[in-house]
Amino acid sequence: MKISDRILSMQASPIRKLVPFSDEAKKNGKKVYHLNIGQPDIKTPRLFFETVKNYDTDVLAYTHSQGLRSLIDSFVEYYNGWGLNFEERDILITNGGSEAILFALLATCDQNDEFLVPEPFYANYNSIGEMAGAIAVPIVTKADNGFALPDIAELQKLVTPKTRAILINNPSNPTGKVYDSSEITNIMQLALNNDLFIISDEVYREFVYDGLEVFSFGSIKEIEDRVILIDSISKRYSACGARIGCIASRNNMIIKQMLKLCQARLCVPTLEQVGASELFNMNKSDLEKIRTEYDYRRKIVYSALKEMKGVFCKMPQGAFYIMAKLPVENAENFAKWLLTDFEINGETVMIAPAEGFYVTEGRGKDEVRISYVLNAKDLEKAMAILDAGLRRYHALQ
Amino acid sequence: MKISDRILSMQASPIRKLVPFSDEAKKNGKKVYHLNIGQPDIKTPRLFFETVKNYDTDVLAYTHSQGLRSLIDSFVEYYNGWGLNFEERDILITNGGSEAILFALLATCDQNDEFLVPEPFYANYNSIGEMAGAIAVPIVTKADNGFALPDIAELQKLVTPKTRAILINNPSNPTGKVYDSSEITNIMQLALNNDLFIISDEVYREFVYDGLEVFSFGSIKEIEDRVILIDSISKRYSACGARIGCIASRNNMIIKQMLKLCQARLCVPTLEQVGASELFNMNKSDLEKIRTEYDYRRKIVYSALKEMKGVFCKMPQGAFYIMAKLPVENAENFAKWLLTDFEINGETVMIAPAEGFYVTEGRGKDEVRISYVLNAKDLEKAMAILDAGLRRYHALQ
Repeated sequence: MKISDRILSMQASPIRKLVPFSDEAKKNGKKVYHLNIGQPDIKTPRLFFETVKNYDTDVLAYTHSQGLRSLIDSFVEYYNGWGLNFEERDILITNGGSEAILFALLATCDQNDEFLVPEPFYANYNSIGEMAGAIAVPIVTKADNGFALPDIAELQKLVTPKTRAILINNPSNPTGKVYDSSEITNIMQLALNNDLFIISDEVYREFVYDGLEVFSFGSIKEIEDRVILIDSISKRYSACGARIGCIASRNNMIIKQMLKLCQARLCVPTLEQVGASELFNMNKSDLEKIRTEYDYRRKIVYSALKEMKGVFCKMPQGAFYIMAKLPVENAENFAKWLLTDFEINGETVMIAPAEGFYVTEGRGKDEVRISYVLNAKDLEKAMAILDAGLRRYHALQ
Repeated sequence: MKISDRILSMQASPIRKLVPFSDEAKKNGKKVYHLNIGQPDIKTPRLFFETVKNYDTDVLAYTHSQGLRSLIDSFVEYYNGWGLNFEERDILITNGGSEAILFALLATCDQNDEFLVPEPFYANYNSIGEMAGAIAVPIVTKADNGFALPDIAELQKLVTPKTRAILINNPSNPTGKVYDSSEITNIMQLALNNDLFIISDEVYREFVYDGLEVFSFGSIKEIEDRVILIDSISKRYSACGARIGCIASRNNMIIKQMLKLCQARLCVPTLEQVGASELFNMNKSDLEKIRTEYDYRRKIVYSALKEMKGVFCKMPQGAFYIMAKLPVENAENFAKWLLTDFEINGETVMIAPAEGFYVTEGRGKDEVRISYVLNAKDLEKAMAILDAGLRRYHALQ
């Protein structure tokens, strides 16, 4: 039997591929600090669990393919709070942001069509692109100049007759970049000049620091028909396991088409939708507390990395990730070694090798992505372990 | 902007496309008996809800991409009870059977590769195939001879250099067909002769009548490396809204590859996995009671249809659907009319037009699929309404 080429050529998640090694380490009694995955330690609001507990039904039935009405309404109200005027008919509930991306790519790209995406980018954009048969064309950005987008002339050079969309994550996982108004304008102009869709993944909207603001593509009237907003409650409400996301677009033609994709998988799980509906009632000041907490952690990680010999990184502006260049040849080997051959007092750290966040050959081999999703004390310990790990690894080479 | 051809050419679900009309009917105070969708009225075991209620966690976190260990173990144990020797490493938990089908097609077919599938078939096979860029090639079967598969010489004629897999649903939605041992042997031989995968969707395994038995492809040692079993708890435990399914295969190469697809969507929702883990403890005699209930309903629907003038159908052998040929030119128009223009004492029925269960041009236009998922009393009422509807519709033509 022939296994498909597309699945053979697909990369394993750089965030999850080392899980067998961390599982093994834990089995052997090692404590592993997880800096590899964007799984916050922040408590999920009790309201979620209480709503699920109080949900009374005899038959756990399918919901509408579009999503549970109460959850759609919650999203609409939430967006209104951000000055985004979506209506009920503009929203499709999805299995997390992941499915939203898949549906957006399936709806905008045919086989071998291309989408532009600032690189480094969330590794699963590439896998999901491969599932959809669409090709990720990198907009190369670099830590040296804060992951800024190139100017519009440079951007234009990347467009081919097969380009269909620009996929942009703002704030960015993994770089923490928050795009400024000139960058947003350039992307808008590029889309207008070349008749492209903008798939704007804004799941980290709330996590922005240093007084910066996120400028949503959803707020630009001029391009409202070409913007597909991607969202998720995973990070905002620390409910990653709920797998609740959504697609929002004022382009009712594409929403109507994407509903067929929703129908093909029937619906999103009922209980998680029920619980998620109430999360939006979370106190704004609680959200602000969480933001402040991440800001604090950001500074801890950044300061610690800055002190490590041979490590290069820039202060992230948003989300809760930082990209760091390490003084190692191959960051994946190092990350694996941390799990299999290293420990301090029975503890080690897990980091995500960054090569999988690039498609440009050769980029990212000596970089890692670090998620600052642990509490300050654990983060400090984890950074000390990383520092010691780097020294030991260096001594062994 | 260009919307993709693949999504434009995708059909809307024949089971769900008339939902706006049933919503409208309900809004106007009409009661609608849903015979269109396989949403059973059987109660979901309380154990599911109780397990979810008792699940105590601070952070609703991602689970492993493969699935929650306890749920995987439940599937393994369940299969062992059926004499199917799957181990933990052979199982991937999926978002319902739908995602399992998508992953199986993505892993076996590249763009424009073909899979054979007995027609009529579950309509979403076609949509999911289009998502994967794979082409459904129908194995034509007909009600006249009980939807039997053609002999191996006929089957062989359908194979091309692009054929990668046979997708078979046993027992079948929508026909209720249960494949006999000679049919199973032919499919096995076809797979062996042409080096194909067999994607065997056995979600209705428990729902078989008249003393028949389901013969699982998973039990044939000779082809264990080419069988990908598709499963779901939706129907078995009346938990459609949980969206919990799985892929099981002894081919560890393809399981390892498909894990990359699981990683690309991170994980299946946590709470639903937690609840589902315990469903497998459902009493076997309770399952048998449910089977007996469906058997009873099957007879009600079949007898009623047999009495209706101009209606043709065969007694289904399994699952809980029946395909019926109606004395109308266009069953979709009729199904829509039942919702918009017809009622008896404020009540009407919703049925699924069957054209979407076919890919062969012209087939199924005058057929519908009826799900016997309502209680006997409601089913009887619904069948009387359908009968009256047919008479009225006929009078109007």
